[in-house]
Amino acid sequence: MQRPSERLRQMGLTLPPVAQPVAAYVPFVRHGDLILLSGQIPLEDGKVVYQGQVGREQDLAAAQQAARLCALNAVAAGAAAAGDIDRIDRVLKVVVYVASHEDFHDQHLVANGASDFLRELFGQAGVHARAAVGVAKLPLNSTVEIDVTFSVRS
Amino acid sequence: MQRPSERLRQMGLTLPPVAQPVAAYVPFVRHGDLILLSGQIPLEDGKVVYQGQVGREQDLAAAQQAARLCALNAVAAGAAAAGDIDRIDRVLKVVVYVASHEDFHDQHLVANGASDFLRELFGQAGVHARAAVGVAKLPLNSTVEIDVTFSVRS
Amino acid sequence: MQRPSERLRQMGLTLPPVAQPVAAYVPFVRHGDLILLSGQIPLEDGKVVYQGQVGREQDLAAAQQAARLCALNAVAAGAAAAGDIDRIDRVLKVVVYVASHEDFHDQHLVANGASDFLRELFGQAGVHARAAVGVAKLPLNSTVEIDVTFSVRS
Repeated sequence: MQRPSERLRQMGLTLPPVAQPVAAYVPFVRHGDLILLSGQIPLEDGKVVYQGQVGREQDLAAAQQAARLCALNAVAAGAAAAGDIDRIDRVLKVVVYVASHEDFHDQHLVANGASDFLRELFGQAGVHARAAVGVAKLPLNSTVEIDVTFSVRS
Repeated sequence: MQRPSERLRQMGLTLPPVAQPVAAYVPFVRHGDLILLSGQIPLEDGKVVYQGQVGREQDLAAAQQAARLCALNAVAAGAAAAGDIDRIDRVLKVVVYVASHEDFHDQHLVANGASDFLRELFGQAGVHARAAVGVAKLPLNSTVEIDVTFSVRS
Repeated sequence: MQRPSERLRQMGLTLPPVAQPVAAYVPFVRHGDLILLSGQIPLEDGKVVYQGQVGREQDLAAAQQAARLCALNAVAAGAAAAGDIDRIDRVLKVVVYVASHEDFHDQHLVANGASDFLRELFGQAGVHARAAVGVAKLPLNSTVEIDVTFSVRS
């Protein structure tokens, strides 16, 4: 089994810098072997690159890319929390919030953008429990936000 | 105190098969003595039997039935994770997402459909911490989705 | 470092009574060193004092006060779970649900009302991982609901 750091390279990706919250919270909290992350939005170079509701400003394919980008940001935060991406033991749980227009109810397909990416990167250790919900609005008008819990090797 | 398996029989219920996700996620993840479930929707025989928003396509009573069905599916997944329903130690936390029309704000009453069922089945071990929220849309146009965390006997 | 109980006094605050759920759930569940709370709404003397969506019935400043009040109620529940506010070890995670009008996407600024309060009260131990989302409706038409996980000293 390939290490996630090698797989990341093979996928042609590098971990982005961890977004620094501007308020009284932090990107992650470690508790025992759990890593609890703050919500991750589709930030790239400090800008939200997918904005608006799916079914209105964004289509399904774009929203899946947004979810994938959220997941990449989550991995960056998880790697920072664990000290190294290869010390992440498992992706335990992912909650995917999808800013959804009235008639859109394929939130689970949007969420696959995150889930597929995590499996591609971590293999079986990337396969997680998941909930996907459609919400009205997300911070900074993000199209997707994900909330991830990892476990870390002790 | 009756075992949940006996209580289930007495309630005239059998556990449904665990819904198999079609994507890169799984119905449950065990971590230590925790069972983290994927979101459960009101599936019966592979079909979503309660669709649409409460306050529009569905009324309160139907939404409570939907929440109860979600909880039954959650118990099925929890039992599969624990190996046996009687090895579930406690229902720790339930988040209830209710697809809500604009003027509906009795999400907590909808959520009681799940909470009451879990207490009926598990007794004191079924009494949990809970959050209920009203969302725009849920996957497959489900009326309710619940996110459950169990602990398991070690 | 000041104890939270002293800091609370200095802030001129007292912990409100813990809201007693009327249904088959409880204000908190302890599991190991974790405290899982039920969702907290802006209740004061048994009444929801901030109702309606931000961007319609409520403005940002009022919603921040609502979030702060939710956090105070969460601390009251956490203190009851821990036996004493000073036995709370850390605020691990906060999910902030903001009832949001269509064009409001500053949920993170609303959430700061809770985050700033928790840091003010607990210092570094109050700094947490956080997710903020905008939802359609919350129970009893609350403007904000928060879902908090604490750890407790063993």
